[in-house]
Parts: sequence; structure tokens; C-alpha cells
Amino acid sequence: MSNSFGSAFKITTFGESHGRGLGVTIDGCPAGIEVDMEFIQSELTRRKPGQSKITTQRKEPDEFEILSGIFEGKTTGTPLSMVIFNTDQKSKDYSHIADSFRPSHADYTYQEKYGIRDYRGGGRSSARETAARVAAGAIAKLALKQLDIEIFGYVSQAGDIKTEKSHTELDFSLTESNIVRCPDTEVANQMIELINNIRKQGDTIGGVVSCVIKGTPVGLGEPVFDKLHARLGAAMLGINAVKGFEYGSGFEGAKMKGSEHNDKFENKDGKIKTLTNLSGGIQGGISNGEDIYFNVAFKPVATIMRDQDSVDKDGNTVTVSGKGRHDPCVVPRAVPIVEAMAALTILDFYLLNKTTKL
Amino acid sequence: MSNSFGSAFKITTFGESHGRGLGVTIDGCPAGIEVDMEFIQSELTRRKPGQSKITTQRKEPDEFEILSGIFEGKTTGTPLSMVIFNTDQKSKDYSHIADSFRPSHADYTYQEKYGIRDYRGGGRSSARETAARVAAGAIAKLALKQLDIEIFGYVSQAGDIKTEKSHTELDFSLTESNIVRCPDTEVANQMIELINNIRKQGDTIGGVVSCVIKGTPVGLGEPVFDKLHARLGAAMLGINAVKGFEYGSGFEGAKMKGSEHNDKFENKDGKIKTLTNLSGGIQGGISNGEDIYFNVAFKPVATIMRDQDSVDKDGNTVTVSGKGRHDPCVVPRAVPIVEAMAALTILDFYLLNKTTKL
Amino acid sequence: MSNSFGSAFKITTFGESHGRGLGVTIDGCPAGIEVDMEFIQSELTRRKPGQSKITTQRKEPDEFEILSGIFEGKTTGTPLSMVIFNTDQKSKDYSHIADSFRPSHADYTYQEKYGIRDYRGGGRSSARETAARVAAGAIAKLALKQLDIEIFGYVSQAGDIKTEKSHTELDFSLTESNIVRCPDTEVANQMIELINNIRKQGDTIGGVVSCVIKGTPVGLGEPVFDKLHARLGAAMLGINAVKGFEYGSGFEGAKMKGSEHNDKFENKDGKIKTLTNLSGGIQGGISNGEDIYFNVAFKPVATIMRDQDSVDKDGNTVTVSGKGRHDPCVVPRAVPIVEAMAALTILDFYLLNKTTKL
Amino acid sequence: MSNSFGSAFKITTFGESHGRGLGVTIDGCPAGIEVDMEFIQSELTRRKPGQSKITTQRKEPDEFEILSGIFEGKTTGTPLSMVIFNTDQKSKDYSHIADSFRPSHADYTYQEKYGIRDYRGGGRSSARETAARVAAGAIAKLALKQLDIEIFGYVSQAGDIKTEKSHTELDFSLTESNIVRCPDTEVANQMIELINNIRKQGDTIGGVVSCVIKGTPVGLGEPVFDKLHARLGAAMLGINAVKGFEYGSGFEGAKMKGSEHNDKFENKDGKIKTLTNLSGGIQGGISNGEDIYFNVAFKPVATIMRDQDSVDKDGNTVTVSGKGRHDPCVVPRAVPIVEAMAALTILDFYLLNKTTKL
Repeated sequence: MSNSFGSAFKITTFGESHGRGLGVTIDGCPAGIEVDMEFIQSELTRRKPGQSKITTQRKEPDEFEILSGIFEGKTTGTPLSMVIFNTDQKSKDYSHIADSFRPSHADYTYQEKYGIRDYRGGGRSSARETAARVAAGAIAKLALKQLDIEIFGYVSQAGDIKTEKSHTELDFSLTESNIVRCPDTEVANQMIELINNIRKQGDTIGGVVSCVIKGTPVGLGEPVFDKLHARLGAAMLGINAVKGFEYGSGFEGAKMKGSEHNDKFENKDGKIKTLTNLSGGIQGGISNGEDIYFNVAFKPVATIMRDQDSVDKDGNTVTVSGKGRHDPCVVPRAVPIVEAMAALTILDFYLLNKTTKL
Repeated sequence: MSNSFGSAFKITTFGESHGRGLGVTIDGCPAGIEVDMEFIQSELTRRKPGQSKITTQRKEPDEFEILSGIFEGKTTGTPLSMVIFNTDQKSKDYSHIADSFRPSHADYTYQEKYGIRDYRGGGRSSARETAARVAAGAIAKLALKQLDIEIFGYVSQAGDIKTEKSHTELDFSLTESNIVRCPDTEVANQMIELINNIRKQGDTIGGVVSCVIKGTPVGLGEPVFDKLHARLGAAMLGINAVKGFEYGSGFEGAKMKGSEHNDKFENKDGKIKTLTNLSGGIQGGISNGEDIYFNVAFKPVATIMRDQDSVDKDGNTVTVSGKGRHDPCVVPRAVPIVEAMAALTILDFYLLNKTTKL
Repeated sequence: MSNSFGSAFKITTFGESHGRGLGVTIDGCPAGIEVDMEFIQSELTRRKPGQSKITTQRKEPDEFEILSGIFEGKTTGTPLSMVIFNTDQKSKDYSHIADSFRPSHADYTYQEKYGIRDYRGGGRSSARETAARVAAGAIAKLALKQLDIEIFGYVSQAGDIKTEKSHTELDFSLTESNIVRCPDTEVANQMIELINNIRKQGDTIGGVVSCVIKGTPVGLGEPVFDKLHARLGAAMLGINAVKGFEYGSGFEGAKMKGSEHNDKFENKDGKIKTLTNLSGGIQGGISNGEDIYFNVAFKPVATIMRDQDSVDKDGNTVTVSGKGRHDPCVVPRAVPIVEAMAALTILDFYLLNKTTKL
Repeated sequence: MSNSFGSAFKITTFGESHGRGLGVTIDGCPAGIEVDMEFIQSELTRRKPGQSKITTQRKEPDEFEILSGIFEGKTTGTPLSMVIFNTDQKSKDYSHIADSFRPSHADYTYQEKYGIRDYRGGGRSSARETAARVAAGAIAKLALKQLDIEIFGYVSQAGDIKTEKSHTELDFSLTESNIVRCPDTEVANQMIELINNIRKQGDTIGGVVSCVIKGTPVGLGEPVFDKLHARLGAAMLGINAVKGFEYGSGFEGAKMKGSEHNDKFENKDGKIKTLTNLSGGIQGGISNGEDIYFNVAFKPVATIMRDQDSVDKDGNTVTVSGKGRHDPCVVPRAVPIVEAMAALTILDFYLLNKTTKL
């Protein structure tokens, strides 16, 4: 189960990589959101394959259709369902893995869990499923826009190349100016070169997507288990290939002293603000009005263009050869996915927070 | 909302630091689990304050009572409710923060979210709430024991002192042999010295708790949003003071190549196993039968024994002085909490997995 | 599972008839509700046994304690937990049913489902569990009072004695004026006589509780599955001994023509109202601002003061004799339970409705 | 919200009467169910309009497409999504109600709740939405078939014409032998005549659908709030036009004595059975292995072929004229809907019950 995410703004995705298509239904979509179709498409386009030389060369238009939930350009409060029909499926590419388990893929675990699996392109376990999340996330972003909340994802690390600039030093208007989606343009060039080299080796490389959320009102997040960062973390860890999540001071915070780490409050023009923000905009699991920021670590894509030893269903040793068209590094295309999951999380908490008082 | 955790084995905690007590109700507790009262108490004792010189010196016995759900020593399948009544409450200690917001605490955000807060000892936001989780986790551990699943938490880092041994090199029978709960005894001594020094400075320090889960069957975890590691991450990020979570290769994985990172399958005596385990025992969000392991980063405790500038409700500048009895480093006492949340997560997925087939 | 009721205002009850006590935790209780302790006790007193000659003569004070969630007399938005400790348990009364299955009780089904059961007084299946619902319902009523929503339950039928007056013809200030809780005082006397006769025969009799909800705003209820009446129905059918639920025209509506049944809209002093109200205040699953009214059918209590043939665990024929102190007719004590479940349902929808728009 | 039904086998429907189509996604569909496409279509055909002279004459083929969740003819455990695209939409028919509120429809309440509504054919509030439920219910029925559980719905009453035969006296193989779906063929003819007369008058009439579930194992149902009959009741009350639900002895049970109503247990060939079944196969909210049976009351369809006074958005008096093609009596087409909701409920509890023990 649990192809659903969210409580008040609840999405359920469906679909497989090589089935009829991918889709999502939003239950709890507030009425009256203006649905900007071009914006939704532009978000899907940021995620789609084949967008640059450092992504997979598969061509999929990733055009969406809305099946329900809007009337005269606005959401009606009824379930909003969207489908992206598959077009470039090439199922033959995958016959070689019908019975074999690709290393570090979900083939083995799906087979054992369900006793059956759609092996074509990874089936349900394919990252193609995230297209549905991006579509739903685009609706959430349109709602957040009406609330003046903005989300800025970007690549902060590819392999061991990393921007040294903190999120407060970056100009996010530059993120989309390069194909790796790193607003530190000098570092971006190094990243692109690295990924290109890795691609030529038939190998893949990991990376980190960072994200900043601006404009969040005070009060979002539901203690004790659904702290804002706990749900953000779950949202990010639910994205394919993610291995870690940290917010605010993160793992560095473990090395710090309380006297260094505490964010002092001050009265700034009648508003309570903090001087520093090692808390990452969240205290006690609840947003405090400062910028929320976090990092998401992605492992290298498991599909490499090399032969690898593995086993088949019966335990026989087999060689899995690297076929298909895959990303040498997933982080550039992961940026809109991270943003989408962040948007879904924030909007959900925004709606939940309305029930805190009578 | 969301004082609940879990789907099939669902706990709901209640209580404040200085109210009548803390408690938890388990809904969905399977029938027939043998309830070992001494074991539950021993788990609470591992978490309780005052247990050593490097923890807070507050004295709270943390004795529990079971209010429902067992009969003749076994769970009956009906809600199992437990309470730990508060005894050492000293409410006067907290009058000074009735209207002031302590830096990097939840005072400000609770006040803004709810318009009212029980400020005594942090009220609901106090880490004392985790006693209820440990009690519920003890029941989960008793169930997992019947399933031969074991959980080993330990302190792997305090400040910048860190064991260099991987989880496969450690002897977990040594974890409880020292007060910092680090099975690398040499490093443990350095940690204890560090924490003692920090305590004398009236300061606090962060750290990392690591955890290994052994014996998990293949198939636990629910794609796509409730991946096993996504829920584990949410479980850990829901613990007070946690800033980050990583599993398997974690943030290091972001620097690696696919050819290095992939875990090859092999047939080992008729069982499909992996040669390496950078996946951390989870592939596609589902357990693959290897050891599950992860790290949890804790920030330094926000309460320090020093004066700090802050503001009150009305935005006036105030000085918050460090009073009360607090931990210089939270990680030794956090070990049983991490284990409890891990146990709750694994048992929940174990039960959920039963519905995968007819 | 599913000892929980509600989504936004979610209660979880626990406890057995002869264990330590009964309790309830409210998760999602809005902050700022004034908690009137006397009112809560008065609601429990309306439900408690031993209150008149036509109820069971068991004496249980049913005093409650609040364990968490209030501060200085108001709810804080954190979980509000209440316990009613058991005092008059007389466990010996029940040894005779440890292995036998009482006819039309839950003994057999609990035993088969869980493989274990607390047989004392019915354990978890005892209607004593509803005390916890009444306590939680009292909090919900206090919240609804602040919203000017009122709930009026009453006995409309006992056996075949039935008031012929519709809910619009009754004076609800008379409900508590007699021990059977029927505001039609003449009929009330007949009911009391009937129940007394039944009691003397060692038998029991069924009845109907009716309920009217006044002051509900337009818009409560969540189509399509959680229609207001669907959840009200589930709430009522979840009460012990309930066999049926109908609202508005109910089963009589099945015989009617559309031209008779339709409620015409009219403009009444600038407000849209309906001339008739066969819809029972709900259209398309959503409240329309008219009175909501419904009937709840209760079967006769299964425990009778006579010997009955039955079987034991091993299928042997046994005689179950009528022991203990039981109600000859459950409906007078069921009135506050019906009201409590109605209050919980309405408040839940009130909170959920806040998320309909941004 | 709450366009979802079920916990373990959870469906979410979407779509409007005159949008692109209706659909449903099943999350938690067990892997390995054989998907019989013809059976699914046959269920949709039993519900579709235009099937006989006593139903609406709208022609809609109601053909479905599966978008995800099956592979090589079997369910894979991933979300199973189905769509029924709309073909016969005639949106012009509905322009006259864009601003007016039809009596006893959901027009007014949707408008007030959401501030916007798709008025074409009732939009989301149209009973056309139930096609999605029937499609999902067909999958549930296929699963139940593998478990030897069978569901028999039938019309037991239309207006005041009613079969006097109890469910044990009827031959359900006759249900589909007549267009009104009443297995008491003599009574069926009277029903058909009545409905025909009503139709000629431009009026509508209510009715009752009864349902029997055979082969349920002991143990399904989750006390205390999600009793088997509470969820069945909610499932039925969630169907458009339903006004009441009763099971077992139902409202008649309110008139009975305990000594008459109790179902005695007996040992029948080594199995524990009851001699009578006034409990309706459910005791303490849990199935006891006997036949489950219940009645569902439907009001007359609100759309009649006559002029009716009403008001518009601004409170002006308007005349709503009866246009379109509507059912004179909804119960014949409601039979497969009742069965579908029963199948979804039973399968859900079957899966949930697996987590009762370790």
C-alpha cells in the first residue's frame, strides 16, 4: 500500500514505467485554485528525460491530461486526477531482465514481496513514477503561490564537486541557467564536466539536491511524530535513489556546542525573528517563519553501461549487461521532484494547521 | 494532530512533562504477545534521567502501569495502554519562562501555533514524551523477538569524537558496558571525557546514534511513499533534537560511482545474498534480508547553563538564564529511543506485509 | 484495530470492563476550548449504571480524571487523555463464562478472532467502553456549544411503545424529566411500565433512540464516501447493540414518490431554507442548515436472567445462567452515548470543512 | 476529502458526470488476483443506464480501461487504476441549472461548501460516480471468489410493494431473470408495473435493496468503532439516495425481547453454529460465520419530469423543469452498487484480519 502521500492534501499515484501511463489523484484539493496548464507542463518538462546531454536520451514528451476536478479553469474541491500516457516504451529492451535481478535495483525485493512483477523498465519501481508527483506538486505550487510561499531546489553537489556557498549566498534566478541546475555557475560547469566524463565511462555518479522554502508562516508542522522536518524527510526519502536527509545544521550540528548552535530571538521591526538559523526554520517540529532549508543525498544510478555479475530467480549466476538509456547522474532531473515533494508537504501542513483552533 | 505513529501497529502518545504523566495507547497490537514487565521497565530505565554522571541529574523513577490490553500475561488484541505517572515535577523551576521564549526551543512556535502552551518543562514539546515511545517500543521489541528480529542502537559520535569502526566490526554486547553506550570502548572513554568537560562548561554537545537491525525478512516496506527507509527516517526525525538521517551509504553515497556502489547478488548456500551492503539492507524501499543500518544526527541540547538574550511574548528583550537539570549530551539516553522507533517501524511493516497477498 | 473514531478530531478509546479502567485520548483537539469539568461528569452520570430502577443496579461512580492536554482550564491542542478507573469489578461473577459462549454476545467471535479474550464482564466488548466515548463526546459538546450547535437525543420507542410525535412537536427540555428519557411524558410512563414488567420477567427489550442536531452550518460532510449521514450512521452502528440507522425520511422514504419527497427551497428573510425537511438536513451528503435528525434501533440486551443452552470452546453443550446485574432495556442509558457520537461526528466535520478552501 | 473507501484495500474514485470520465485507483490490491475483464464489464453493464424500460434511457456504454496494476493478467500488488471515459454527455441539457438549485439535489450544498461546482449533470454528486465503485467492486469480487465468499444483492421492495419472503426462502439464481432484479418473480412483476406507472406520471419512487453475504469466515470486523456492520452501514449510506440501513433483525429487533432475539449456539457436526440468525451473522461487530444480511432504503430519485418551484443562487424564486433522462426508480440499478460496496468492505476486513496475530 501507501501509494498515497499527505493527509489533508492527499495524493495517490499509479502507473508503471511501461504500462499505459502514470497518473495521480489529489483528494482534498481545495476549491478555487487557478489551474495554470502551462505551468504544470513546464514542471513536467523540467523532469522529463532527454532534456540535455547530461540526462538520459530517452525521448518522452510527458504531456499530461486532467481527467477531473476542474471546472472553468479552477479546482472544484473534488478529486483532481491527471494522467501522463506513456509513448516511448520499447518493452523489448527489458526482456533480458525478466528473470534476472539487476544489482541495487528493486527487482529482487519486488519479486520476493509480491511474487510477481512488471519487469519492463522497472515497472512500478521506475523513477518514471515521479512524473506523477511532479504533476501533483505543480498544483500544490500553484496553491502556495497564492499564499506567497516559494520553493527553490538546486543541485549543490555532484560526486565530490560541491558549491561552498550557503543558500543565503546564492541567486536562485540562476538555477535554470545551466543544465545541471546549480546556481553557482562556476561550480555548475565543473559538475557538467564531471558528469560528462562519468557518462563516457559508462558509469554513474551520485549527488546532493538542496532546497530552500521561503515565506512559510509560523505554525506549520504537527508535533510530535509529524514534525515538519519529519514529514519533509519522509517525502524526500521516498524519492528513488535517496540515501539521506538533513535540515538546518544537519549532520554538522552533531559536532556543535549548544552555545554555538542556539538561534537567538530578536525583535525586528515588531516581528520576532532569529539572528541565526541553524534550526533551519523549524523549532519543535513547527515552522518559525525563517527560511526552511535542507539537503537530500542521492546515490549513483544503479544502471551502468557495463556488464555486472548477478543471479536469476533460481539463484543461477548470470551477467546483466548495461542496456537502455539512463542518466549518468540523477540530480539535475531530481530538482523538480524535490521541489514537488516539498510543495506537497508544505501545502498539506498549511491545510492541517487550519484545524488547530475552533 | 499526529500524535500517532504507525499504520497496523499504531501508537498514540499523550502527556506533558509536568502534567499527570505520559502515556501511550497501542491500537492494532497483535494478540498473544507475551508481555515481559521487567523488560519494559529495563527499557525505560535505559532512557530515564539520572542514570549516570553524564546525563541530567533529575530523578524520575519512570515506572509504568499497564491500563488495558493484556490478560493473564498476554496481549489480547485490544488497545494496550500504558502510563508513566510524573513524580519529580518541580513546576516552580519554569515560571521564568512562562512568557519568554528560550532560544532554539519550541516555546515560540507552540505559542504561535496554539495560542496557549503548558510552559512547565517544555510541556508537550519536552523530550520526556519519548518515555511513552520507549514503553510502546518495548512491546514491539517483544513481538520482534518472537520473530527473531533484533535491533542494536549505539552512540557512534559525540561532538567530533567518532568511532572509525563500521557496524560490522563492532561487538554490540559491549554497548551497555559504558555510560555513553558506545561499543568501541576506547572511543567511549574519550566521549565520556568530552561530555564531562562540556558539562563543566555549562554547555552541551551534539552527537550521532547509529542503529543496526538484524534478521529482517525480505519484503518489508511499502513503495512508493512509505519506503522502509522513508518511514524509518520519519521515525527518527520525529525524535526531539534530530537534524539528519542517512542509511546505507548515506551522504557518502552521493560521492560514489555506480560501479563502486552497486551491491552484487550472489547465491550463498541456496540463499540470494549481496556481497556488499551499501544499500543498507533496503532496495526499492523494501528490505532485502541484509542488515539494515542507519545514522541519526542529534543537535546539542538547547538548554545551557548560561544566560542568553531572547525576547518575550510582547517582543521585549529578556535574559533567559540556564536553570534546571539538563543533559550535556543527549545521545546516550537517545539510544533506547532510536531503538524503540526502529522496532515500531519494523513491526508495523511486518504486519502490513501480511496483506500483500490474498 | 480501529479503536479510533474521527479524522480531524480523532479519539482512541482503551480499556476493558474489569481491567484497570476505561480511557480515551483525543488527538486533534483544538486549542482554547474551555473545559467544564462538571459538565463532563454530568454526561458520564447520565450514562452510568445504577441511576434508576429501570437500569442495571450495578454501582459505579464513573468518575473521570484528565491526564493531559489542558492547562489553566483550557485545551492546549495537545492530546487530551481521560481515564475512568474501574471500582466495582466483581470478577468472580464471570468465571462461569470463561469457556462458554453466551448467546448473542461477542464471546465466540472474540475468541475465534484473537485466540484469547478477557472474559470478565465481556472485557473489551462490554458496553462499559462507551463511558470513554461519552467523556470524549462531552469535550466535543463543549466545543460545539461555542459554535452554537446543539444535540438532542431522546428515547422514541421502547419495545412496541412509541411516541407518535415528530421531533418538531417535542419539547426537549422534558427529556431529562423522566427516567426513560422520552420527552413525550405520557408515553414515557408507558415505557417505564413496560420496562419494569420486562425486568420482572427476567427478560429484556429493545428500543429506538432518536436524535436532532440544531444549528449546524451549511457545508459539513465530505462526499462521496464520508457523507455526513454515512459517518453518522457508522458512529451509531458502532454503538453496542445497534441494529439499524435511518435519517430524514428513512425507511419510510422508500415508499414515497419524488413529488412528495422533494424538499422545496424558499427564500426566507434572505436565507435559503427548505419548506419541508424529508432530507433530514443533509443533501448530497452535506448539511444544508436544516435540522439533522435520525433514528437508531437497539436490540434487546443479550444477557437475560434465565438459563439458556449454549456451547463451550470445545463444542460441548452447556447451560449459561443469567447472572450479574444488567439493564432490562438499554435505550435510556444509550441517549448520552448517541449524543456523544453525534457530537464527535459533527465537530470532526466542522474541522475538516476548514480545509475546503485555501 | 474522503473520496477514499477502505483501509487495507483502499479505493479512491474520481471524476464527474460530464467531465472526461470516471475512475478509481485501488491501493493495497493484493498481488496475484486473476483479472477477468469480461466479468468486470458485466458488472458495469448491470449498473449502466439504458438497460431496460424501467431505467433511464440515456445510452452510455460504460466501457472501462485498466491503466495500471496488472501484468500478464494478474494483479501485481501495485495500484490498480481504471477509467470509464464519458461518451454521452449532452452538456447543454444542464445549462438551466447553472444558477438554480434543484430540490433535494446536492446543488445548493455543493455551491455553499465549495463556492464553485460543476453543475453539468450533477458533476461529482451524480450517481454516475458509482460506476467507478462497481469497477473496483468487481476486482474485490474476483478476490472474494478465490476465498469462496459470495454476495447476493436483490430488490426486496419498490414503493410499497415488497417481497414477504425472507432471504433464506429466495432463489438468487432468479435475481437477474427480471429487469427489476427481484428473485420473487411474482412480486417482481408487480414492481415492474408500479415503476412503469410511476414513470408515466413523470414521477419517481423509492425502494429497498437487500443483500446477503455467504461464506464469510469467522473473525472479520474490527471492534470497537469499525464493527463489520458499522462499516457496511457506512458503505451503504455512502451510496447516493440511501436513507437507511439495518442488518439482522434491524428496526424490528427494537420491538423484541431478549429471550426471543438471542441466537442459541449449537454444535453442528463439529462446527459451532447458531440455530437462528437474528444477529445477521455479526456478533460484537465480528462475523460469526453465519449469513450476513442487511437492507438498504433508497429515497425516490429527486429529478422528476414536472415543474418545481425553487430558488437560484441569489435567492430569487425560479421554476426548475424536469428535463433529461432519469430513472423512475433507482433500485434495480442499485443492486450491483450495493454488492460492490459489500465486496469492498468484506475484502478490506479480510485483509485487516491478517494482522490480528503475529
